[in-house]
Amino acid sequence: MKQLVDFSKGDGLITAIAQDAETGEILMLANMNEESLAKTLELGEAVYWSRSRQRLWHKGEESGNTQKIRELYLDCDGDAILLKVEQIGEAACHTGKRSCFFRKLDQGVVTDVGVQVFDPSEVYK
Amino acid sequence: MKQLVDFSKGDGLITAIAQDAETGEILMLANMNEESLAKTLELGEAVYWSRSRQRLWHKGEESGNTQKIRELYLDCDGDAILLKVEQIGEAACHTGKRSCFFRKLDQGVVTDVGVQVFDPSEVYK
Repeated sequence: MKQLVDFSKGDGLITAIAQDAETGEILMLANMNEESLAKTLELGEAVYWSRSRQRLWHKGEESGNTQKIRELYLDCDGDAILLKVEQIGEAACHTGKRSCFFRKLDQGVVTDVGVQVFDPSEVYK
Repeated sequence: MKQLVDFSKGDGLITAIAQDAETGEILMLANMNEESLAKTLELGEAVYWSRSRQRLWHKGEESGNTQKIRELYLDCDGDAILLKVEQIGEAACHTGKRSCFFRKLDQGVVTDVGVQVFDPSEVYK
């Protein structure tokens, strides 16, 4: 595994894209260190590295919205990984929206096109 | 724009995902600084920041395989951008493959599932 993945360019981190395995929708972007990638492979669920909290982050540990890994792809130079996932709870974003990429930018105007799945004040106590 | 995008977390860079606007296939991941994002908006084509070359990188400047911007989305915390693009030449990767994410990882085995579109030795002289 080590020779396939290059953690050196990102100071120990690679970038992970979570994409809905069924619809192709991009759900979120996060980081992984070597330990989180190993945990992801072990559990079959996305485990990221939280830069803000400086700890492993088993996605959905609080909300229950885990990401089951369906397929994994490494990019050409090994500093990014694509996770095709089944998003439990149908929402990946801490805002309760399905995808984190809900702010559409067009001609300098931003529109919220997100699909609200849950109320974050109900989920994160 | 500035208040929507947070270049501070990534030392002046945000992460950009290029996704095929038609098929939903993820083509590549790259970085943008403020200037490259401004250029992208100005030209309507993807302009990244090359970390290795430390300069603006108008995608396709050498290969001709530019990326026409169809839609743009910012993520919830403003440190990532999703470009839905029309990939000219049908290949985004410097290896000549359609997508950079051509190494499928399954049970510790890596398989090349990429679609070879061009011969890089013919394109990059």
